[in-house]
Amino acid sequence: MSKRNIRLTISYDGTDFCGWQTQADQRTVQGELQNALFTMHKHPVTITGAGRTDTGVHANGQVANFFTDIDSIPDRQFRDAINYYLPQDVRVLESSLADDDFSARFSARKRMYRYFHYFSEVNLPHMNKYAVRLREKPDIRLLNEYASYLIGEHDFAAFAAAGDQSNSKTRIVYSSCFYMHNDFLVYKIMADSFLYRMVRSIVGTLLECEKKRKSGDEFAFILYSGDRKAVGCTAPARGLFLEKVLYDGND
Amino acid sequence: MSKRNIRLTISYDGTDFCGWQTQADQRTVQGELQNALFTMHKHPVTITGAGRTDTGVHANGQVANFFTDIDSIPDRQFRDAINYYLPQDVRVLESSLADDDFSARFSARKRMYRYFHYFSEVNLPHMNKYAVRLREKPDIRLLNEYASYLIGEHDFAAFAAAGDQSNSKTRIVYSSCFYMHNDFLVYKIMADSFLYRMVRSIVGTLLECEKKRKSGDEFAFILYSGDRKAVGCTAPARGLFLEKVLYDGND
Repeated sequence: MSKRNIRLTISYDGTDFCGWQTQADQRTVQGELQNALFTMHKHPVTITGAGRTDTGVHANGQVANFFTDIDSIPDRQFRDAINYYLPQDVRVLESSLADDDFSARFSARKRMYRYFHYFSEVNLPHMNKYAVRLREKPDIRLLNEYASYLIGEHDFAAFAAAGDQSNSKTRIVYSSCFYMHNDFLVYKIMADSFLYRMVRSIVGTLLECEKKRKSGDEFAFILYSGDRKAVGCTAPARGLFLEKVLYDGND
Repeated sequence: MSKRNIRLTISYDGTDFCGWQTQADQRTVQGELQNALFTMHKHPVTITGAGRTDTGVHANGQVANFFTDIDSIPDRQFRDAINYYLPQDVRVLESSLADDDFSARFSARKRMYRYFHYFSEVNLPHMNKYAVRLREKPDIRLLNEYASYLIGEHDFAAFAAAGDQSNSKTRIVYSSCFYMHNDFLVYKIMADSFLYRMVRSIVGTLLECEKKRKSGDEFAFILYSGDRKAVGCTAPARGLFLEKVLYDGND
């Protein structure tokens, strides 16, 4: 009897999670999903995620897959079945049947993240869980000048945090821009994949350069230097959302 | 030496509070504010709020006042001074000097609340703390037909929860309407004041009537009946925000 490969789209509030990946004695999203699957299957089931989001990072469109030997649940009903066993801060939005060779992680072609800022003199309790406060609206034109330098194939070593285990630090960025949406300043970045804490490191550096009114050339120098010490601080996790993962045939 | 009367505008995330009003052994917004003021003053200070919001209800524009004998803090600096001692889920947005006879509660002329719904087949973790899910978009035209009956001076006894201690159940509603804002269905209601759980009871009834496709006349009958048993269930606290309190001279 062959097992079905089930693909999930998942949303979670990262606030109370130590990130995606299972860790001993820590509450993680993968851990909660595997607990739910264990209860349903009566044996351990491994789930693979497209993006291993860090502690406190959120997701609206994480993708994951697992193989099931349960025959009684139709593909699209796994959504409600798994949600029944999950805590409220993680929800399966969709479930469907995938090809046997589909891997949420290795078949992924592009990942898209968004980072949210809002403007206020004091922290606003209802915004502060999902966005980071700025005192004043920055110069969006200047931010977009920097942001455009990131587009294309680059060695992003300067933006990799200690602990990054990738062999190559070269990534292809497909889009990188700032825009206003409702009361939020949004930074959107899409790439084939990301180094450890790369988005937060980019966001921190972009804002710091804007604050110091650096020129586009000065920002480009940081990018091309490959020098970790040249980049700014890492932006807080709570402003970051994994929004979408793209596979062959859906972009 | 006369004490200054300081007026505050306050925002809070009601999720982890047992409402506004101090209660023994419970975490309340008034309690947290009075703890902060106690630390600053080295003696107990009572703070008066405009709206005694219930457990789980949020606020963007609660108003409160207290009398201070601290001379060293300018009126507008109380904001930052108090915030320094407060937990992150409650923030003072503004502080200013009020007349000696100003009471946040008794001087208030109108209170405005908003209630938020969103539409989805499953709970969305990032929306679910501050809004309530509906499976489908209701008939907003029909909801607004009901909502318009509430405008004016009425006996709202039917919408008062057990535990309401008001002598008169008559209130004046100034506005009552539904509209879409971003992805949210918003219900906005302004009145001179509200009975215990009145807004949530109104929202629950309006939605239930829409679901049953009741006519405007049938809704009016519920309103005029004064019969608690005729109204629908009470909508959850987490969708409700105290948005604004109006005083003489600012509406």
